[in-house]
Amino acid sequence: MSKAAALSMASLEHPLPAGMRDLLPEEAAARRAVARAFLGHAELFGYEQVIPPVFEYAHTIERGLGTLDPREIVRFVEPETGEVVALRPDVTPQIARLVATRLPHMTPPYRLAYDASVLRRRVGSRARTHRQIAQLGVELLGVRFLEGDTELLVLAARALSAMGLPSFQIDLGHADVFKSLVAGLEPARAEALAVALGHKDRAEVARLAGELPIAAALAALCDLHGAPALLESLPAALLSSPAAPAIAELRQLVSQLGKELEGVPGVTLTVDLGEVRGLAYYTGPFYQVLAEGPGVPVGAGGRYDQLLERFDCPLPASGLALDVDALLWALRAAKSPLLVRPRRVVVHGVGAPSLARALRAAHVPVAVLGGDAADAARYAADWSYALVVDARVHEVSFEDRAGSRTSVPTAGACAAIVSRLGSEERS
Amino acid sequence: MSKAAALSMASLEHPLPAGMRDLLPEEAAARRAVARAFLGHAELFGYEQVIPPVFEYAHTIERGLGTLDPREIVRFVEPETGEVVALRPDVTPQIARLVATRLPHMTPPYRLAYDASVLRRRVGSRARTHRQIAQLGVELLGVRFLEGDTELLVLAARALSAMGLPSFQIDLGHADVFKSLVAGLEPARAEALAVALGHKDRAEVARLAGELPIAAALAALCDLHGAPALLESLPAALLSSPAAPAIAELRQLVSQLGKELEGVPGVTLTVDLGEVRGLAYYTGPFYQVLAEGPGVPVGAGGRYDQLLERFDCPLPASGLALDVDALLWALRAAKSPLLVRPRRVVVHGVGAPSLARALRAAHVPVAVLGGDAADAARYAADWSYALVVDARVHEVSFEDRAGSRTSVPTAGACAAIVSRLGSEERS
Repeated sequence: MSKAAALSMASLEHPLPAGMRDLLPEEAAARRAVARAFLGHAELFGYEQVIPPVFEYAHTIERGLGTLDPREIVRFVEPETGEVVALRPDVTPQIARLVATRLPHMTPPYRLAYDASVLRRRVGSRARTHRQIAQLGVELLGVRFLEGDTELLVLAARALSAMGLPSFQIDLGHADVFKSLVAGLEPARAEALAVALGHKDRAEVARLAGELPIAAALAALCDLHGAPALLESLPAALLSSPAAPAIAELRQLVSQLGKELEGVPGVTLTVDLGEVRGLAYYTGPFYQVLAEGPGVPVGAGGRYDQLLERFDCPLPASGLALDVDALLWALRAAKSPLLVRPRRVVVHGVGAPSLARALRAAHVPVAVLGGDAADAARYAADWSYALVVDARVHEVSFEDRAGSRTSVPTAGACAAIVSRLGSEERS
Repeated sequence: MSKAAALSMASLEHPLPAGMRDLLPEEAAARRAVARAFLGHAELFGYEQVIPPVFEYAHTIERGLGTLDPREIVRFVEPETGEVVALRPDVTPQIARLVATRLPHMTPPYRLAYDASVLRRRVGSRARTHRQIAQLGVELLGVRFLEGDTELLVLAARALSAMGLPSFQIDLGHADVFKSLVAGLEPARAEALAVALGHKDRAEVARLAGELPIAAALAALCDLHGAPALLESLPAALLSSPAAPAIAELRQLVSQLGKELEGVPGVTLTVDLGEVRGLAYYTGPFYQVLAEGPGVPVGAGGRYDQLLERFDCPLPASGLALDVDALLWALRAAKSPLLVRPRRVVVHGVGAPSLARALRAAHVPVAVLGGDAADAARYAADWSYALVVDARVHEVSFEDRAGSRTSVPTAGACAAIVSRLGSEERS
C-alpha cells in the first residue's frame, strides 16, 4: 500500500474532529422542520431572527459569558493576525454585542430569535472532546419581570405544543431565593452550600449552615420542588427570610402563567425553590423545560438583568433556548406529525421526464432514475421512496413498498399517483 | 477612564474579526426565505439536505479542494490536540467525505442539498481579510453527462424562476474544450494560454500559440461567447481539433436544456467556449448563472468526475451552488414577492394580552408593548410594524403609518385588524 493510500485509509476511519458530526438527511430534515416551526412562532410574537457569525473575538464572548465555565470555550489563534478568536459556546453574548454595536439606536424592547450551533469543550474529561449543540432561542431585551418572563414562556409553550409535544413541564426557580439567603456569607461557604443544595443533600446543607439564622430556610429548600401549590404552604422560616421577595415574584409568575397558558395543550407548571444552576448569571426567575425521554432539558433560560451593562447597554433582559437534539428526541418519541416527511416517488422509463414535470407541478417530490426496474426498486428502498413508477409511452405502472402494483394509461398517471400517495398518507 | 472601560470602548468600535458580519433581521429573514424556497425545490427533485460540521481536518478539505487556491483556507491548530483543522472554504469536499464515510452503502445516485456558510481568505490582499459566503447548493453523485448536468440546471432554473428572479442567464462552457487543445503542451505554456484566454486577449493567445497546429482553434475561442446559435457555425479549425468531442457535448446539453426549460419564465442560455475557470477541477460542462446587478454570478457549478475517487469512492458527479448574497441582491432589485415580510401589529393597553392571543390565532404577528401610545408609535416606526393598536376595555383603535385612525368595539377588533392588514397587503 502506498503511503498516500495508507494515510487515506487512516483518515477515513476517523473522518471528523472529536465532537463534530454530520447530520444525515432524516436528521437535517427534522431539524429544519423544528427550526421553521419555532421561528414561525417567534415571529407571531414579534421576534425577528438575527444571524451572528460563527466565531468572534474571544474577549467578546468571555465578556458576556453566562452559566458556562470559561474552559468550555474553544479558542484559536489566527496565524496571520495573532488575534484570539472563539467559536461561540453560547449565543447570548453575541446577541448582546450585536444589540450594543449594531442596533443601539432602536427603540427597546429588542425581540430577537436565533437558530445556531454552539460549540463547547467538555471540561474535566480527557482531551479531544467537544460537543456541537444546536439551539433555537429567543432573547427579550428591555422588558422587566413579570411581563418579559411571561412572554418568553408563553411563546415557548405555544411553540412546543404546536410542534406536537404532547406533554411537557415548565420548571420554575428564582436565582434570588438562594442568593438572598447566602448574601452575607463568605463566598467559599456559599459555594459549598450551593453544591450541597444542588444535590438536594439535606444533611450536608444543615451541616454547612450550622447555627446561621437562615439554616432552617436553607434546609427547607431541599424539599421544595413540585407542583406550584407548594408555594401556598411554605415554611415560616422561609417566608420570614430574605428570600421572601424572590418567592413573591415566583408566585406572581406562576399565577400569570396559569392564566396565559390556559388552553395550551400539554403544558404543566412546576417549581423548584432549591434550583441553583447559573446563579452567577441569572438575576431573577429561571426556567427549564422538561419532557419525557431525552434525559436533558429540552429548553432552558431565565432573567439576566446585569448582562447587557457589560456591553455598555444596560437593559433588563431574559432569554430562553431550546436544545434541538433533546427536543427532536422527545418529538420522535411522541411521533410528532411535524417530523413526517412528504411521500416521494421514483420514476424511470422513457416517459420519466414529462411525468416528473407533471408530478412536481402537483408538489410531489420525484427522483428520475436512468436504470431499470431493479435499480429503481433498490434506490427507492435505500432512500425511502414510497412508490416506484415505470413510465412507458402509453402506460404507467407503479408499485408500492409492499409490492402492490397498479397500471394506468399515461394520460391519467399523474392524477392516479397523487391520489394513491394521498390515500397512503391518510392510512 | 479605567483600563477596563478603555478596552471596552476599543473593542466595541471594531467588534468583529475581519470578514465576519452579523445578519440583521431583514437580511436574516430574506436569507431564510431564499433557503426555504431553494431547499423546497431541491426536495421536489429528490434532493435531501445534509448538514456537515462547521470545521473539519484540514487534510480532508484539502483532499477535495476544487477551484480554490489552498491559501484561501482558514486553518487553525487546536491547542489541546495539535490537530490542524480548517473552516470550510467550500462544501463539496465535505459532501464527498460524508458520502464516502457515512453513506457508502446507499444505492447511487446521491442527491444531496446544503445550506451553509463557507469562509475564504482573500489571497494577495493585505492580512485580516476573510469573506464569509452563504451558499445554497446541490450535488448529484453517480449520474453521468448528460442527465446529471441537465437535472441540476433545470432544478436551479425552476427554483430561481419560482423565487421571482425575472430574468437570468445560464452560461455554459466545457472544461475539455481548452484542456483537449493544450493536452500535449508543457504546463507553463498551457497555464499562460489559460490566463490569456481568460482575459479574451486574442493577440496574446496568438503569440503564445505561435505555430502550433491548434493555434487557430485557440484564437477562435476568444470570440466564441454568446447565444447558443454560435455552436452551429463554428470555425473549421475548431471542429477538426481535439476539442470536437467537448463541443459535441456542449451542443447536446444546449439542445436538452432547450427542451426541458421550455415554459420556465425568465431563463436564457448562452455559451462561452473560451471559459477557463476551474480547469483543474472540472471534467466536463461547467455553468454560471448570471443576473442583472450583483456583479458576480448568482450561481456556479459543473461536472467533476474525478473528485470522488480522491475519497476512495469513484463516482461521476456534478454540483451547483448559489451565492446567496448575490442572489438576494438580484431578488431585491427585482422586488421579488419572496422578500415581502408579513405585516405586523403593535398592541398596547389593558386589552393587549387577549387581543394579541386572538390576532396570533389568526396568524398575525403581534408585539405587546407595556408603554403608552407614544412609545408604541416609536417602536412601530423603528421595527417596521404596520399598525399601532390601543386595546381598551370596550373599544380598540388602530392607527397606520400614515396616521389614519380607526376605532371599533372590542368584540370586532380582531376581524377589523385582519381585514385592514389584508387590504394594505393588496394595495
